[in-house]
Amino acid sequence: MTEKTIATTLPHEQQAIPLKILGMGKYLPPRVVHSSTLEAQMGLKPGWILQKSGVEERRWAEHESNAELGAKALSEALENAGLAYEALDLIINASGSYDYPIPDTSCLIQRAMGKGRSGIPSFTVDATCLSFIAALEVAASFLASGRYQRIAIVSAEIASRSLNAEEKESSTLLGDGAAAAIVGLSSEGETSALLQSRLETYGDGALYTYVKGGGNVLHPNDSKGTAADFTFHMDGPKVLGMAFKHLRPFLKTLFKPLGYGLRDCEFIVPHQASKGALDTARRLFRWREDQYIDHLATHGNCIAASIPMALYDAIHQQRIARGDRVCLLGTGAGLSLGGVVLVY
Amino acid sequence: MTEKTIATTLPHEQQAIPLKILGMGKYLPPRVVHSSTLEAQMGLKPGWILQKSGVEERRWAEHESNAELGAKALSEALENAGLAYEALDLIINASGSYDYPIPDTSCLIQRAMGKGRSGIPSFTVDATCLSFIAALEVAASFLASGRYQRIAIVSAEIASRSLNAEEKESSTLLGDGAAAAIVGLSSEGETSALLQSRLETYGDGALYTYVKGGGNVLHPNDSKGTAADFTFHMDGPKVLGMAFKHLRPFLKTLFKPLGYGLRDCEFIVPHQASKGALDTARRLFRWREDQYIDHLATHGNCIAASIPMALYDAIHQQRIARGDRVCLLGTGAGLSLGGVVLVY
Repeated sequence: MTEKTIATTLPHEQQAIPLKILGMGKYLPPRVVHSSTLEAQMGLKPGWILQKSGVEERRWAEHESNAELGAKALSEALENAGLAYEALDLIINASGSYDYPIPDTSCLIQRAMGKGRSGIPSFTVDATCLSFIAALEVAASFLASGRYQRIAIVSAEIASRSLNAEEKESSTLLGDGAAAAIVGLSSEGETSALLQSRLETYGDGALYTYVKGGGNVLHPNDSKGTAADFTFHMDGPKVLGMAFKHLRPFLKTLFKPLGYGLRDCEFIVPHQASKGALDTARRLFRWREDQYIDHLATHGNCIAASIPMALYDAIHQQRIARGDRVCLLGTGAGLSLGGVVLVY
Repeated sequence: MTEKTIATTLPHEQQAIPLKILGMGKYLPPRVVHSSTLEAQMGLKPGWILQKSGVEERRWAEHESNAELGAKALSEALENAGLAYEALDLIINASGSYDYPIPDTSCLIQRAMGKGRSGIPSFTVDATCLSFIAALEVAASFLASGRYQRIAIVSAEIASRSLNAEEKESSTLLGDGAAAAIVGLSSEGETSALLQSRLETYGDGALYTYVKGGGNVLHPNDSKGTAADFTFHMDGPKVLGMAFKHLRPFLKTLFKPLGYGLRDCEFIVPHQASKGALDTARRLFRWREDQYIDHLATHGNCIAASIPMALYDAIHQQRIARGDRVCLLGTGAGLSLGGVVLVY
């Protein structure tokens, strides 16, 4: 079966859903780790990290948990939306890393907000780096069905505890951080909407980006596990090769019902995957410099938190205005491709 | 803020969504572990386990992964639905345990099906024991919005690698297994529908059921971690106390828009949480013996796979027929309560 025949079985015609981002929040742990410090520690030439991974500095959490980062981002999102916590009817944790294997982090975010008696439902949506995009798709359908009306999506990531200093590229690329968005239905006369969304998953690339140990395949108590097994591993060239093989047809299908293309969007928020990924995408798809955000140098790749943190920055730097067409776009472990086209 | 005032802010009026379960599958790993064997190993009196946890035997996976169990259940579900894999447009992994910390298990299920090039999108919904219920709610809204049309929900759990033999109640209660459901829209004239769904989360109980180590709070490479830290811990009495405090008002709200109650459903599929939970629920809510399924004795508590495995058994034992009103109901780590009322 070729990918072409499958693509035709996927739904092409999607109705726009009047989803509006009511407010966003962002939180970075205070500890700044400069690339020069890492270069000295790791015996790398000055400038190696910026050249290789595109990162000058990133935050690494000290004592904070995923839930604490998430709760701080959610608090700001509520403030910016002008809403009390009690106005929420659902919290979706959309993160790839977690505090405990059980329970999922969503209930811990609620608890860290001091609202552990509230009963507000919560669960986790996990598609690693694309968790925010998958959760936005879930939230939009909940709004469309009327099931939920005010949904918080929280992406809170701590990558720094799973780094392998021997794997220089990934250990200098990843950072910690959190972002949250409150979404609800647009009011009469507002144009905010989720126009299109799309995910594709190619499991053949599942282990190009992975943490081998910590689950059931290699349990922490398995004596065969080495310290390196419990750290992050990424085969950058394989990820890039597979991702860019699929990205052009993916974008074509995503935009087909809209009658325009990615470059026609006022703004693009790409996953801050790596310097290689961002440079290649910009060149291949001819993004204008003022059309997309690249905050990799000051944040690193923060897994699922990257897309909403970059969206937050673009909004707060007034690079995105109400009514703009914005494309959130990324690739992630899975290997998955994900995109959302929305009117902010 | 009291819980009462919050309940009134939650949506009470939900439209029925014409969701139909098109086919289900179930897979148990072949290794049967009898309670008598465990009693001998653990120095327990013969009969202690059956009396305490209600389990006579459970399956414990030997070499299988979560994804392999899930792929086998999904294969049977597709067969029972009369559908090819390519007819799916989404795979939701709805499980609390996992193969790797990254990536989420959904892409590994796709890969274990031999379909790693298919591009069919996938992600994970995790609400621990209630993951299947949360995923059913997600799937229903996707069907309602038209975003996806044929969705596989797969719950695949391996609890056995995270047991602590010192904690006798939980280590003799938990089992491994998988179940899958394919859902789509009902055809004209069919009555199958998801009538109501509800989740409530009380984060104050988040650590009543947990695995302390393995995530960012206690990383596998943290020298402070002991073997016991990476195993499952449950405070049964606290879970029961908190769950049953909330269960009666929860059910009242769940059924309010329907104008009837839990006992009016033709069939009840409870989470196979524990003997204590099942006995208490049956007694409190006066379930008739022929009205609910209790397969705890032969399966144990298989986390999120319990509800869909029990649903599968009830359907295949012809205890549920098309047109029956069925309530899926459970409590889980979080602490969460979840319920779905559907017409099968």
